[in-house]
Amino acid sequence: MGNSFGKIFRITTWGESHGNSIGVVIDGCPPGIEISLDFIQHELNRRRPGQSNITSPRSERDKALLRSGVINNVSTGMPITLEIFNQDINNLSYEVIKDKWRPGHADFTYDVKYGIRDYRGSGRASGRETAARVAGGAVAKLVLKRFDIDIYAFTRAIGNIYSKVLDRAEIEQNIVRSPDREAAQKMIELINKVKEQKDSIGGIVELRILGLPPGLGDPVFNKFEAVMAYAIMGLGSVKGVEIGDGFAVSNLKGSQNNDVFVNKGNKIGTRTNHSGGVLGGITTGEEFILRAAVKPPASIGLEQDTVNKNGSSAKIKIEGRHDPTIVPRIVPVVEAMAAIVTVDFLLRQESIKAFNNNF
Amino acid sequence: MGNSFGKIFRITTWGESHGNSIGVVIDGCPPGIEISLDFIQHELNRRRPGQSNITSPRSERDKALLRSGVINNVSTGMPITLEIFNQDINNLSYEVIKDKWRPGHADFTYDVKYGIRDYRGSGRASGRETAARVAGGAVAKLVLKRFDIDIYAFTRAIGNIYSKVLDRAEIEQNIVRSPDREAAQKMIELINKVKEQKDSIGGIVELRILGLPPGLGDPVFNKFEAVMAYAIMGLGSVKGVEIGDGFAVSNLKGSQNNDVFVNKGNKIGTRTNHSGGVLGGITTGEEFILRAAVKPPASIGLEQDTVNKNGSSAKIKIEGRHDPTIVPRIVPVVEAMAAIVTVDFLLRQESIKAFNNNF
Amino acid sequence: MGNSFGKIFRITTWGESHGNSIGVVIDGCPPGIEISLDFIQHELNRRRPGQSNITSPRSERDKALLRSGVINNVSTGMPITLEIFNQDINNLSYEVIKDKWRPGHADFTYDVKYGIRDYRGSGRASGRETAARVAGGAVAKLVLKRFDIDIYAFTRAIGNIYSKVLDRAEIEQNIVRSPDREAAQKMIELINKVKEQKDSIGGIVELRILGLPPGLGDPVFNKFEAVMAYAIMGLGSVKGVEIGDGFAVSNLKGSQNNDVFVNKGNKIGTRTNHSGGVLGGITTGEEFILRAAVKPPASIGLEQDTVNKNGSSAKIKIEGRHDPTIVPRIVPVVEAMAAIVTVDFLLRQESIKAFNNNF
Amino acid sequence: MGNSFGKIFRITTWGESHGNSIGVVIDGCPPGIEISLDFIQHELNRRRPGQSNITSPRSERDKALLRSGVINNVSTGMPITLEIFNQDINNLSYEVIKDKWRPGHADFTYDVKYGIRDYRGSGRASGRETAARVAGGAVAKLVLKRFDIDIYAFTRAIGNIYSKVLDRAEIEQNIVRSPDREAAQKMIELINKVKEQKDSIGGIVELRILGLPPGLGDPVFNKFEAVMAYAIMGLGSVKGVEIGDGFAVSNLKGSQNNDVFVNKGNKIGTRTNHSGGVLGGITTGEEFILRAAVKPPASIGLEQDTVNKNGSSAKIKIEGRHDPTIVPRIVPVVEAMAAIVTVDFLLRQESIKAFNNNF
Repeated sequence: MGNSFGKIFRITTWGESHGNSIGVVIDGCPPGIEISLDFIQHELNRRRPGQSNITSPRSERDKALLRSGVINNVSTGMPITLEIFNQDINNLSYEVIKDKWRPGHADFTYDVKYGIRDYRGSGRASGRETAARVAGGAVAKLVLKRFDIDIYAFTRAIGNIYSKVLDRAEIEQNIVRSPDREAAQKMIELINKVKEQKDSIGGIVELRILGLPPGLGDPVFNKFEAVMAYAIMGLGSVKGVEIGDGFAVSNLKGSQNNDVFVNKGNKIGTRTNHSGGVLGGITTGEEFILRAAVKPPASIGLEQDTVNKNGSSAKIKIEGRHDPTIVPRIVPVVEAMAAIVTVDFLLRQESIKAFNNNF
Repeated sequence: MGNSFGKIFRITTWGESHGNSIGVVIDGCPPGIEISLDFIQHELNRRRPGQSNITSPRSERDKALLRSGVINNVSTGMPITLEIFNQDINNLSYEVIKDKWRPGHADFTYDVKYGIRDYRGSGRASGRETAARVAGGAVAKLVLKRFDIDIYAFTRAIGNIYSKVLDRAEIEQNIVRSPDREAAQKMIELINKVKEQKDSIGGIVELRILGLPPGLGDPVFNKFEAVMAYAIMGLGSVKGVEIGDGFAVSNLKGSQNNDVFVNKGNKIGTRTNHSGGVLGGITTGEEFILRAAVKPPASIGLEQDTVNKNGSSAKIKIEGRHDPTIVPRIVPVVEAMAAIVTVDFLLRQESIKAFNNNF
Repeated sequence: MGNSFGKIFRITTWGESHGNSIGVVIDGCPPGIEISLDFIQHELNRRRPGQSNITSPRSERDKALLRSGVINNVSTGMPITLEIFNQDINNLSYEVIKDKWRPGHADFTYDVKYGIRDYRGSGRASGRETAARVAGGAVAKLVLKRFDIDIYAFTRAIGNIYSKVLDRAEIEQNIVRSPDREAAQKMIELINKVKEQKDSIGGIVELRILGLPPGLGDPVFNKFEAVMAYAIMGLGSVKGVEIGDGFAVSNLKGSQNNDVFVNKGNKIGTRTNHSGGVLGGITTGEEFILRAAVKPPASIGLEQDTVNKNGSSAKIKIEGRHDPTIVPRIVPVVEAMAAIVTVDFLLRQESIKAFNNNF
Repeated sequence: MGNSFGKIFRITTWGESHGNSIGVVIDGCPPGIEISLDFIQHELNRRRPGQSNITSPRSERDKALLRSGVINNVSTGMPITLEIFNQDINNLSYEVIKDKWRPGHADFTYDVKYGIRDYRGSGRASGRETAARVAGGAVAKLVLKRFDIDIYAFTRAIGNIYSKVLDRAEIEQNIVRSPDREAAQKMIELINKVKEQKDSIGGIVELRILGLPPGLGDPVFNKFEAVMAYAIMGLGSVKGVEIGDGFAVSNLKGSQNNDVFVNKGNKIGTRTNHSGGVLGGITTGEEFILRAAVKPPASIGLEQDTVNKNGSSAKIKIEGRHDPTIVPRIVPVVEAMAAIVTVDFLLRQESIKAFNNNF
């Protein structure tokens, strides 16, 4: 269970790290959308391993194959399926972890939940599954072109090094995806140092959405930010999500935190944006801002204590193809999930718009 | 839309702050559970306004009336409905906000989304709606008694004052629900000071769950912590959610953050618990730990700038019955949502257990 | 589980025959709809017992009380809750069936499924639950007023007596709800005869929807007619559902059954309507036609064999307040479910309409 | 939308008749089930075209390729994906229908709903999509082996020729899948005659399920038979569904239709089975019986009137590879959907069983 996401625009993903293929079925894409395989591939390339010397060297082209739902490059309203075959599979190296639980990995919990586990390359618990999300998110981004909504994410921090400048043009110019050229340099140095130590390092990803219309989100349980939190906390490495000022609000007064309304001429907006673009679970029309805490990858080359399946103590060293940090590669995945959430709410909102003209 | 929560154990809530009644329909409660109205009322009393001098003085008994699903105090498997009539209604005081958007409130976004708004006491955007969640969560807690699972929450911080001691017995002994008697005193002083200033203050709530079996949660999108984040970020005042070490992981190395497995005799566990009790979206059997950032209440007596519905500038002072902080009252709501999520996953897990005996 | 119906326009019902109240929460009603309690009551009156001498004499006013979701008689987009208190409760007469399974009733299956049963007046398995559906359907009908869609149902047959004339104006003029005045007379005679025999009789209800736009319904699983079949087969007395020519198509040739397309000037339509207004699961714009087979009520005064809860043989006579046939009272329930399905598909279709202008 | 079916055991299908591939993602298959590709292929072979001279001569091997969710032939609890590549594609012959609406087909409704249509071989509206359902149903059947539940279907009628004998062993011995050898002969003759006339013919499929435990099905909306009706009416050719005595109940009295309970020694059962194995939406433990009316295929070689996309009158002859009747090929599809519904309810019931031992 739990392999589908979304209500009206809904993706279902399949596949294990070292299985035959991974893929996504996108149900609910509106008809008439131009489906550019080049764009989908571009998004997948931003996530794939081997893209730089600070990512896993596993060699996967992650070539997306279109299976359904499109005729003459245009969506028909039918499910769009994209499939990616796994190519660089090295099952042998995983035999050592068949009966040993790696610290910080899902080996133990899968075993205890299902009584069986595809141990090859972490199976479905592998970050490889997120390629299918990126493919689904790329289609969502193609839908958003109709609405002039612009989604982007970047590396806010690696360890204790923070991006202090937000120069959007810079983000894709460095391999760590920081919008601050100077910080990027230091981040890369830190990552390389950690890599040499056979260790790994965490960080923070930040998401921004521009051009959101006011009115997206359901009150009560399905608040816009609640669904975003669900989407982003559903990424294996994420341990925290905050919106707008986030945890900092715990030490703010109402008079500091409230965003005062102002007439901006062409629209009503707020003078500040502590709320990160949402009030009462519904978008205000201001920029949506979310940060996610990303843990250090669990796979490290250092020797660690653990337990065998039979309960006896053991040592484990995880040799092989690791990411010293996952932050730069998680950037496009965060964007993908955000795009899916946004499209889903947009499509739902249309039925309300049909009934009033205040939107 | 969006007024239901849960898949197998599912609550649907209704009602506005100043409407006739609020209530909850609980669908999927297993049969044979003893439904104690006294316990449900006890939970509601922990949330209700007027419980102390640091909460809103609105006088609501929040008496839960049972409407269906129970015979001889035992659940039948049919929907259980609990209804609470609104009593202390003061519509007049809200006429002033009918055409003015209060900063930090959902007035503007509801208007723009729906073209109409129940302005009386914030309507459905009022925190009053959470009484229905607490009633639903109380029933979930009654189900959890079968499993020996223990859920509790407390105030971790008010402003910059943190609970540094975790003495569970202390929590319900002070009106701010801090587990640290000394901190509680300082928190109350701070709240009273802020109240005098006609201002409000934020804080942090912490949730703990003991006795969770390993194996709860779906991999990929419906991770245990992702659904918890969705549940807690769905509370109107919450701006951030973190699990285990949370945002602190961004500055940890893998060798620091990985929880090493150890054989604890009666079970396999982990030496440390940085992960907060989940790996790969599935519970490990260790304690589940979540913290939520709570913003300062938007209703403050200080004069603020704003805009009228016609777009012209205005001033607003929100007189009336406010909470200077919502943290102590949100504690039982966080517990309620956590109980619902837990029961939902437990019931889903039963169908898998029927197929293996590794659980 | 299973107490909610619909995806975007979604009702959740609660309540037992002899419990405190029954009710419905309607989630997803668009804002701005005029909610007429008089109309809702009118619909409930068409279903209530005691409306004529061929229905159960149980005396219930079925007065609908509005609990939420409406301000100044207009929907706000928030959940609309309607509650009906049970009044004419006679628990004593049900003590005899506490430990005996009535043939044709759900006593046995509820006991075996849940291990507990609210035996008072059949509990939730009572047809009384459908009052909540009628209340929900009444709100759906109010939404449909915006679209000029017209839903009605009638008694096609009681036993072997068929309505051969379809005079719509006649339907509500006779207590059996037949559109054929002559047939109505004979039906009433048959029902009275069966009643005297302490027996009961089945029949057929027919549903018609005029003014449906073409394009409603999802291909593959959620075909318009499939969701209608689900809705109508979800009524306790219904044992069969057919669309258009229905079972008669089994003996038709393609050349007879195909509806030829013709240009009707203002729209494309079909010359005949064997399909009953749907092709490929999607409405054509022609009249939607559905018939449902309704079984004779299981409660009869004649003595029947059965088994006690302990497995020993027993005799049972069900004295009390029965309907000799349920067909006339099921007419408004069928309309209600059809209205809910229609609104749900209409709202979903809006999001597709936003993307093309062929609709 | 609408390309997924099921709640806990859930299939999502993709693919068009003349696209690249069709397939199914099965989410919620319990872990530990032996997944036999041979069995899945066997089921697909029962549905595939070209299996006899009374089916379409399109030559498709329908070879199922396993993509995920299985290790060492055993399910892991992860999504199982099966893919079938389309091979015998003849796009040219469909150019003639690009701008013409075939009577009885979904061409018109897809155009009006989506504003675009994959016209090649009817696209997603083709019966070819049901191969994916059969693959999903085959996995459901593999789950049911654990429960000793036996599902089968057969041809009850072709035109006015009825199977009067129910000899299960005979069903797969004749190409029309009748359990009555004599009737089978006459049916084949009728089909061949209709084929010569370039016409087509309808029929009736009957479904039987043996070994169902009592207690499956949700009361109120999700009745066992309601979900079955939804599943079977979701097949493109089905125009009617009836349970047990079905439409015949309309002319029965309660004293005739009620199934009297009897103690059958090892279980409580009913003397007769008019109800078809369900009471109050929940299985009784008796045989489940359902019949579906199947319309004649819309594709016929005879000339028919129709309309072009521009609204002008036209003639159409549908040459090519047609089925003169679809009944024998729909038999395995009905079984597949029934297996999916049954597994879904079984898995849901496990969570209730965990709470009582009356099951």
